[in-house]
Amino acid sequence: MVPQPDEQAHRQAIARHGELTKPAGSLGRLEELGVWVAARQGVCPPRPFARPRVVVFAGDHGVADDGVSAYPKEVTAQMVANIRSGGAAVNALAANAGASVRVVDMAVDGTTAEAVSAHKVRRSSGALHTEDALTPEQARSAVLAGRTLADEEIDAGADLLVAGDMGIGNTTPAAVLTAALTSSEPVAVVGRGTGIDDAAWMRKTAAVRDGLRRARRVAHDPLALLRTAGGADLAAMAGFLARASARGTPVILDGMVVGAAALVAEELAPGAVRWWLAGHRSVEPAASIVLDQLDLRPVLDLDMRLGEGSGAVTALPVVNAAVRVLAEMSTFAQAGIQGP
Amino acid sequence: MVPQPDEQAHRQAIARHGELTKPAGSLGRLEELGVWVAARQGVCPPRPFARPRVVVFAGDHGVADDGVSAYPKEVTAQMVANIRSGGAAVNALAANAGASVRVVDMAVDGTTAEAVSAHKVRRSSGALHTEDALTPEQARSAVLAGRTLADEEIDAGADLLVAGDMGIGNTTPAAVLTAALTSSEPVAVVGRGTGIDDAAWMRKTAAVRDGLRRARRVAHDPLALLRTAGGADLAAMAGFLARASARGTPVILDGMVVGAAALVAEELAPGAVRWWLAGHRSVEPAASIVLDQLDLRPVLDLDMRLGEGSGAVTALPVVNAAVRVLAEMSTFAQAGIQGP
Repeated sequence: MVPQPDEQAHRQAIARHGELTKPAGSLGRLEELGVWVAARQGVCPPRPFARPRVVVFAGDHGVADDGVSAYPKEVTAQMVANIRSGGAAVNALAANAGASVRVVDMAVDGTTAEAVSAHKVRRSSGALHTEDALTPEQARSAVLAGRTLADEEIDAGADLLVAGDMGIGNTTPAAVLTAALTSSEPVAVVGRGTGIDDAAWMRKTAAVRDGLRRARRVAHDPLALLRTAGGADLAAMAGFLARASARGTPVILDGMVVGAAALVAEELAPGAVRWWLAGHRSVEPAASIVLDQLDLRPVLDLDMRLGEGSGAVTALPVVNAAVRVLAEMSTFAQAGIQGP
Repeated sequence: MVPQPDEQAHRQAIARHGELTKPAGSLGRLEELGVWVAARQGVCPPRPFARPRVVVFAGDHGVADDGVSAYPKEVTAQMVANIRSGGAAVNALAANAGASVRVVDMAVDGTTAEAVSAHKVRRSSGALHTEDALTPEQARSAVLAGRTLADEEIDAGADLLVAGDMGIGNTTPAAVLTAALTSSEPVAVVGRGTGIDDAAWMRKTAAVRDGLRRARRVAHDPLALLRTAGGADLAAMAGFLARASARGTPVILDGMVVGAAALVAEELAPGAVRWWLAGHRSVEPAASIVLDQLDLRPVLDLDMRLGEGSGAVTALPVVNAAVRVLAEMSTFAQAGIQGP
């Protein structure tokens, strides 16, 4: 179901790096990134991305009513409007990287603009520590919405996708999903989120423990897991990431919340990880657990923990640099330079 | 002599980060980078760099005749031509970052175009393991050339400078300078350069040992040190970096060779480091010694070891991202969003 990257372009890119006017291997990971893109585009040298696109999945979570976040739930809808009007971090960072941003309301606990709510599944996902986050039907709808969004974007020309998250309390379900799929303990996956104090951290860890008790039982079934302890935003992200891979479209992963969705997506579509690059290492502890589980080495390590896709789009110019090296540098032969 | 960054813009930038629509501190080092730029530009929010400029200092070294590099000396002049015609790594990476590139021949062992040789001090610096690299007069001329180049670029509008290096064998004098100024042993500062084998590594380490024996005696005197074991390219880079700081122009440092010149520049103009940002951590071991000595934390860590300023210009888009966050994001008040 998930295609293989192009082996020939992969080999050609490695060979081309040996012909360019620099000592072999001297650009380190930048060389690997260029090879990665060439193999995903199926062409060497790779092309600059024509339409890199960020889709931010917004949703509220019932667990936020129990004091697991530093912010009130109302902020989710306010931030959806902020992203739409271009004032959020992801907007500035995407513009810097030549990417455009779309935000979709999957389960915001309030009314958002019609333009962003076409795929909305419900108002706030359930409180995962006491109830299922979604009904089975809602879980299916949300995953399907994510797949549809990936199709829409790819059909509109997107040749690189980034998933972002926006939702007060969303690191709590992300922690549960990550713990369930990596056999981790609650304390290992619970971080400070938006910047909570010790009391909130304890409430969050207890909520993760309670959600995880039910989630572990269904960890083998990705749809049941999303229903039990995920939420509409996480389910849609998982569908989006799985579909991007199935379509052979490269993705730069962001941090903890997208990482949790990626773990589920890899269950939905085994091998999906082949189309994903890790943009950065978030300071959220669960993000490093995800990177280990997926065997991904991040491009950046800048102590970021914002979400929205911010780390992924910050890494994009570095990936673009890797593409330009392969596409624009002279070979030793072209430049008339002696090799070693 | 070296001005202080603007304390008021520094404070304003920190305060502004607390007002932007994101949890305080959630962009990690990206926030610090934005504050750094604001303080160097003396304005908050900071402005996008109008004319970031790379100057690559090319020079040969007599020690290269003794097999310390994987490449023949002729490659230096060939690479100068390659950089001029836009085919080198630094050209592709600078273009990706919106920066332009100038290459200057300080001591290439051959004839280069007139456009790049106006500041040339000699043909190849001396073989530092057996003789002084420069005469006292040449050392002064080379440092002055670097200062003049910084003035030229700043007067032409450059508001961010990057020094790059190009020269077969140039990591050998860089290793000696670094060892002399950090009291390091030869084995601690000698890396694989362009990719040398064990036999060449031993020759290189012996050359560093022999040069260091004479260099240690003059380590307290930067001009004497550059004359004894540096070279015209390293001397010019040191003058360039010191002058940029004296002019209050921010600099992104590259890897090992520029790092060695930076150590000397800090001796020439104490406090110069306040105007420098470390672009990346090169795999060359001496580069990490320089970062420790200057107490600089690099933006990127991508296993690069090319030189030319390549690591610095790869980091530039990330610095630009940090500027755009401060300049373009909405505040909580502007967006009508509740704080924590």
